[in-house]
Amino acid sequence: MAVYTEVGDEELRAFLKDYEIGDVLSLKGIAEGVENSNFLLHTDKGSYILTLYEKRVAEKDLPFFLGLMNHLSSNGLRCPTPIANREGRMQGELAGRPAAIISFLEGISVKRPLARHCMEVGAALARLHLAGADFKLTRRNSLSVDGWRPLFDSCREGIAAFSGGLDTEIEAELDALEKGWPKDLPHGVIHADLFPDNVFFIGDKLSGLIDFYFACNDSFAYDLAICLNAWCFEADGSFNVTKARALLQAYRQTRPMEKEEIEALPLLAQGSAMRFLLTRLYDWINHPPGAFVQPKNPTEYLRRLRFHRDIGSPAAYGIDV
Amino acid sequence: MAVYTEVGDEELRAFLKDYEIGDVLSLKGIAEGVENSNFLLHTDKGSYILTLYEKRVAEKDLPFFLGLMNHLSSNGLRCPTPIANREGRMQGELAGRPAAIISFLEGISVKRPLARHCMEVGAALARLHLAGADFKLTRRNSLSVDGWRPLFDSCREGIAAFSGGLDTEIEAELDALEKGWPKDLPHGVIHADLFPDNVFFIGDKLSGLIDFYFACNDSFAYDLAICLNAWCFEADGSFNVTKARALLQAYRQTRPMEKEEIEALPLLAQGSAMRFLLTRLYDWINHPPGAFVQPKNPTEYLRRLRFHRDIGSPAAYGIDV
Repeated sequence: MAVYTEVGDEELRAFLKDYEIGDVLSLKGIAEGVENSNFLLHTDKGSYILTLYEKRVAEKDLPFFLGLMNHLSSNGLRCPTPIANREGRMQGELAGRPAAIISFLEGISVKRPLARHCMEVGAALARLHLAGADFKLTRRNSLSVDGWRPLFDSCREGIAAFSGGLDTEIEAELDALEKGWPKDLPHGVIHADLFPDNVFFIGDKLSGLIDFYFACNDSFAYDLAICLNAWCFEADGSFNVTKARALLQAYRQTRPMEKEEIEALPLLAQGSAMRFLLTRLYDWINHPPGAFVQPKNPTEYLRRLRFHRDIGSPAAYGIDV
Repeated sequence: MAVYTEVGDEELRAFLKDYEIGDVLSLKGIAEGVENSNFLLHTDKGSYILTLYEKRVAEKDLPFFLGLMNHLSSNGLRCPTPIANREGRMQGELAGRPAAIISFLEGISVKRPLARHCMEVGAALARLHLAGADFKLTRRNSLSVDGWRPLFDSCREGIAAFSGGLDTEIEAELDALEKGWPKDLPHGVIHADLFPDNVFFIGDKLSGLIDFYFACNDSFAYDLAICLNAWCFEADGSFNVTKARALLQAYRQTRPMEKEEIEALPLLAQGSAMRFLLTRLYDWINHPPGAFVQPKNPTEYLRRLRFHRDIGSPAAYGIDV
């Protein structure tokens, strides 16, 4: 939620000479994107996002991210798409950082999603999975089951200090997740971070998906499991089965799911809750005291993990199994 | 440089029902304005700024600020102008804060101003002074000569700790400024903070002035003295007389200056340097350790103060006296 790098008017104009997007009218740093510096650029031809990639996004991953957005939008998914410069390149350099000009997607995220929003999200996620099918580049999911234990080990003491016994509970869950994690589910490109912040609506209609900087290759059902955690819990911690049903049914209407995928959902949702529990614990333990951005409290993901662990069957998500 | 308050989609839509500016397309928090939360709003009718006024802007001053922007733009000055709602009011409430919708001004600020930019700024400042002439509301300049000693007293120990002997030097300067400060110069509404950040250009042409939240009633020449400090020193601390001459000459072509105003310029420029020296020292001394925003180093204003003190005459600004 910050602009980490300033862009001067002269260097901006020099950078844009390589693009055919018109003359600069204005440039505003926007409070969006935890990982990068983002600017809303107006030119006499329209609105664009200028992104400078800061350290946390590995430069080697940029061809995957930019290529993916280009691929998905070429295949009809509504999402931001990188603008190629006069040499046909989607990636340049500005203010000493890798930089890209990306089409601006109108829309606004919903703070309190309703079932009809969940339905739209389910359908959009299925379209994303289908649109990504023939994308050639791949990127490993470093925040999937293989990555959780090293993350846990790196801050185990801090976790025990954060809440007594939490380290023991997480360790037992990791054992179960590693043992039971499904290996051969249908897979491809997933968004991996499709929270309400990253879905835009105009009025009641979904206008597009943004922020593909966690996208990677993994099982499609895991992406759905992330959405169950991101969209279907209420502020008081309760699980809204109407929303889950809306999300999953809309998904299945666009991309039918195999029996194994549905059966795996509760475990995948536990894993997804573990992923956000661990990264939030990590941020909580490692954030500098007095930092401007207060990390989010991790404990809601512990409650979500327990919910998915304790339900008997995916039928608890309101769907036909 | 931050968004302090979040605005949800539902409360935004409810707020905008009172306005005739079309349907919301997007809302982005922008990293602009130290005092308030600002958002760039796209609707199907155009671009707007949504401002939420945080604590540092006194609510009692809002009618002055909003009325002034409205007055100035009605009188032909290019600046943002508040949009009245259906009831004719320019001020509403959103997310528990006073809020306003303001027209969006295209343009980009220059990082390294050239003499031609200074010329444009001088002319625009004179137009501002003329356009404000018949504005009915008034606001005292709390950061003028009367306000400096209380500010100094409030952080004297911190100043001595910041740099040994600096407190003694400032005290002597305050004595001289209070003794010699001119009382009866031509006066009216001034901008009082016309730094390069607050002046927009499209290409080489000035497109408008922004950020009137320090505007107040004071002598016009003091506003010019602020601009001499803000626009005419180089990064290495040297004074660029070509820029000063361009700024002052362009100003005088639009608003001729009286002899007393010109003669007072060096003292007014010392005072203006004192104002920014003291507020920067205050921020430096009082910022929380580890804060996200690092305050600006105050010492450049000490050097500027000494420069204006040591010149013999306003002829050093490159103008006919």
